[in-house]
Amino acid sequence: MFRNAMPRYEILSEEAMATLDGGWRRIVSEIGVEFMSDRALELFRQAGQKVEDAVVRLDPDFLLEQVAKAPREFDVQARNPARSVHIGGDAMAFGSVYGPPFVREGEVRRDATMEDFRNFTRLAQSFPGLDSAGGVICEPNDAPLDSRHLDMTYALQTLTDKIYMGNVVSGVNARDTIAMTEILFGGRESIERTPATISLINCNSPLRWDDRMLEAQFEYTSAGQPVVLTPFLLMGAMSPVSVPASLAQQIAEALSGIALSQLIRPGAPLIFGSFLSNIDMKTGSPCFGTPESAVGLLCTGQIARHFGLPVRSGGGLTSSQTPDAQAAYEGLMTMLPTFLAGINWVMHTAGWLEGGLVAGYEKFVIDVQVLDMLQQEFRPLEIDEASLAFDAHDEVRHGGHFLGAAHTMERFRTCFYRPFLSSSDNYERWVRGGAKDAAARAADICRTTLAEYEPPPLDEAVREELEAYVNRRRRELGD
Amino acid sequence: MFRNAMPRYEILSEEAMATLDGGWRRIVSEIGVEFMSDRALELFRQAGQKVEDAVVRLDPDFLLEQVAKAPREFDVQARNPARSVHIGGDAMAFGSVYGPPFVREGEVRRDATMEDFRNFTRLAQSFPGLDSAGGVICEPNDAPLDSRHLDMTYALQTLTDKIYMGNVVSGVNARDTIAMTEILFGGRESIERTPATISLINCNSPLRWDDRMLEAQFEYTSAGQPVVLTPFLLMGAMSPVSVPASLAQQIAEALSGIALSQLIRPGAPLIFGSFLSNIDMKTGSPCFGTPESAVGLLCTGQIARHFGLPVRSGGGLTSSQTPDAQAAYEGLMTMLPTFLAGINWVMHTAGWLEGGLVAGYEKFVIDVQVLDMLQQEFRPLEIDEASLAFDAHDEVRHGGHFLGAAHTMERFRTCFYRPFLSSSDNYERWVRGGAKDAAARAADICRTTLAEYEPPPLDEAVREELEAYVNRRRRELGD
Repeated sequence: MFRNAMPRYEILSEEAMATLDGGWRRIVSEIGVEFMSDRALELFRQAGQKVEDAVVRLDPDFLLEQVAKAPREFDVQARNPARSVHIGGDAMAFGSVYGPPFVREGEVRRDATMEDFRNFTRLAQSFPGLDSAGGVICEPNDAPLDSRHLDMTYALQTLTDKIYMGNVVSGVNARDTIAMTEILFGGRESIERTPATISLINCNSPLRWDDRMLEAQFEYTSAGQPVVLTPFLLMGAMSPVSVPASLAQQIAEALSGIALSQLIRPGAPLIFGSFLSNIDMKTGSPCFGTPESAVGLLCTGQIARHFGLPVRSGGGLTSSQTPDAQAAYEGLMTMLPTFLAGINWVMHTAGWLEGGLVAGYEKFVIDVQVLDMLQQEFRPLEIDEASLAFDAHDEVRHGGHFLGAAHTMERFRTCFYRPFLSSSDNYERWVRGGAKDAAARAADICRTTLAEYEPPPLDEAVREELEAYVNRRRRELGD
Repeated sequence: MFRNAMPRYEILSEEAMATLDGGWRRIVSEIGVEFMSDRALELFRQAGQKVEDAVVRLDPDFLLEQVAKAPREFDVQARNPARSVHIGGDAMAFGSVYGPPFVREGEVRRDATMEDFRNFTRLAQSFPGLDSAGGVICEPNDAPLDSRHLDMTYALQTLTDKIYMGNVVSGVNARDTIAMTEILFGGRESIERTPATISLINCNSPLRWDDRMLEAQFEYTSAGQPVVLTPFLLMGAMSPVSVPASLAQQIAEALSGIALSQLIRPGAPLIFGSFLSNIDMKTGSPCFGTPESAVGLLCTGQIARHFGLPVRSGGGLTSSQTPDAQAAYEGLMTMLPTFLAGINWVMHTAGWLEGGLVAGYEKFVIDVQVLDMLQQEFRPLEIDEASLAFDAHDEVRHGGHFLGAAHTMERFRTCFYRPFLSSSDNYERWVRGGAKDAAARAADICRTTLAEYEPPPLDEAVREELEAYVNRRRRELGD
């Protein structure tokens, strides 16, 4: 997997960090955080925190004590051990877009289906830069609502051998995901030893954790499976129109969810989550790839390290409706800071369009191309005597050409990253090739990749057991 | 003008810098640099350097003594004093694309004309993020070859009130540019006191400065006008297939040109130039926005600071033939490192397409949008008690909405950067608006901007004097 050994780009001074520390402490202690779960409230009450109705006023130092129990780094196992990932430290793991109800393919935008879900899963399996297909890559609207989590989990488990995310719609769905994960990984003991699925728990920001997310959190955390505790902040809507105020709120929300995890199961693995952008103040629309979100992202990496926690943020986010120039520059406005900030778990790496409402086939391929380039860029440059290649200079001398130099001939196959989507064809050659822009070429790559896809091998007995579980549970759920 | 008060992203260790130092010292002293100018060779000879044929073997410490005579920072005056720029330190100045023989407008790619040149100049005048229209924004193929530098300079001087670049095709052209600059700025004394034009002197890499560029350098440097001494390195062609080797060569070439400037006129202003990317080793085509070029760019900023010199690099470079997703991600793959590296003089900021062969109208607007976003992003974040907006949190509390909060109402007009090109419209609204992608919207903005353009006021007597100069010289040049 990819490890980012380049320096972190840190923009918060010690003084700024101290100010933010003062900010979240005041929020958790004076305003408190709402937990819409009696179980959660009872845990906080037992731990000596002030509970009034559903609001918990938290002692900041108590929060930090809980945070200190969480592991700084941990592994997540994939069914193919070569695809297992490390979460934390220098490691960066990447998953596909998560959540869109629609898909875009060429000029067509339509409801996502289960076959789209499978196709995106196959794409995620095919590109080595991605560590996971993610979870709800798109919402399969043609699958029955109560049982589609079974179909999605089965697809993620069988069509990829990478790690996958767990369903969080309810405690029931979480239990099903865990049960299926136990089947795939040979029992509870295996996944308690090394977790095998990551789940996204969003805060209903500002300062509220809702009941269904908390039910899922209880299930996953009890089973030792990591959750990503994520304040969901569109500044101007769910947080103030100020990056520092939103960062303070983000810390307050994330730490409160993290503390709950540690009360449920001390030492449970988790990730400090961030989803931070802003709305357009004229229309109320969410905006992505904004300067403010990039600054927030840089700060978030630094803040998570300040608390000693692995961090989730970033992705190829955009408001654009199509895989055009805007989609690309907004995506990179987020993805490059994602690398600069050393984000450990990157959701929405590939396929995100239209503010997350659409999973785009062409955008998926474009995003993977950008990911590949960044993974190449953020490798330390080795500078030593040999890399100075003095002999090449001496051979070519003044006004010459390096193409035929001995140094070049020995290295030309591997010396530079070669993109799979970008074109540097001269104009005539490009016209002869059909004058295709990046989106058209991405569509070609998408088709070829799906045509060439082969499912990774899976023990047939395990597959049958998973299938039997899905069929039984589907009947029980009445679908 | 824009000042980048964010931290620099530096990736070279002291040890790496020392290795690079060893590299360029060996190149200049053992291989030497070729100067195709007797005047230049004579200056080096007089200064005690070893000259054999046209090759000067340089004492590295002599080079550093010359470099130390160059100013670390300087001003360049615009005819509108509010548009004057500072070169060096935290200041970043931005100019348009430079050099393309073709233009692209929508689906049409054709020879550039003088009217295209004027149009791009008008666009550059219209967008406040740009500090200069640049120089040869496109090559006006319909203007007579021997006198087109007069037409271009006249257009830059009259259609904008920003700084402009000087023509470098020959010493004659440079003298014309200087003469016209003297007219515009009220005489030689004014432009010697504060220079008024910047010129690009490219090295004929590897390790050769050719006669026509050197003639131009002699003219500009003698007149105290800054030159950008720029190694032109496409790794694999003009330098080895190794970033460190290319960086060492870049230093050797730049410092040799800088030393010549200081021999021509001690204390003359100049800029450490860099144009560094790589070719596709399979096709030989130049590639831009590559991981290797981004790494080289980050190093270049740090290297120029090491020598205490202002630095030129960066831009919205791409190999893409159209203003598509590739054009956008490759452009930002260079522009974001441009900001991270704190580059002082940024050529090719707007309009570059197809490896620099094409000036694109839509790409110009897209690039200015990206520039605007980055200028917003690279401003220090103020984090203090007020920015924490505790009262807003206290007003909205749990699960509420910040849109109507008092804190929001007081700030909603200015709290976030609002893009002029990017769309965050919801799908229905976007379809009603014609379902235009970023390139189509950029074309609209281009048309509107040109329609609304008004030339900045200019003293009629000065304009007449410039016109008379152009007409006289055109006759003398036989066009």
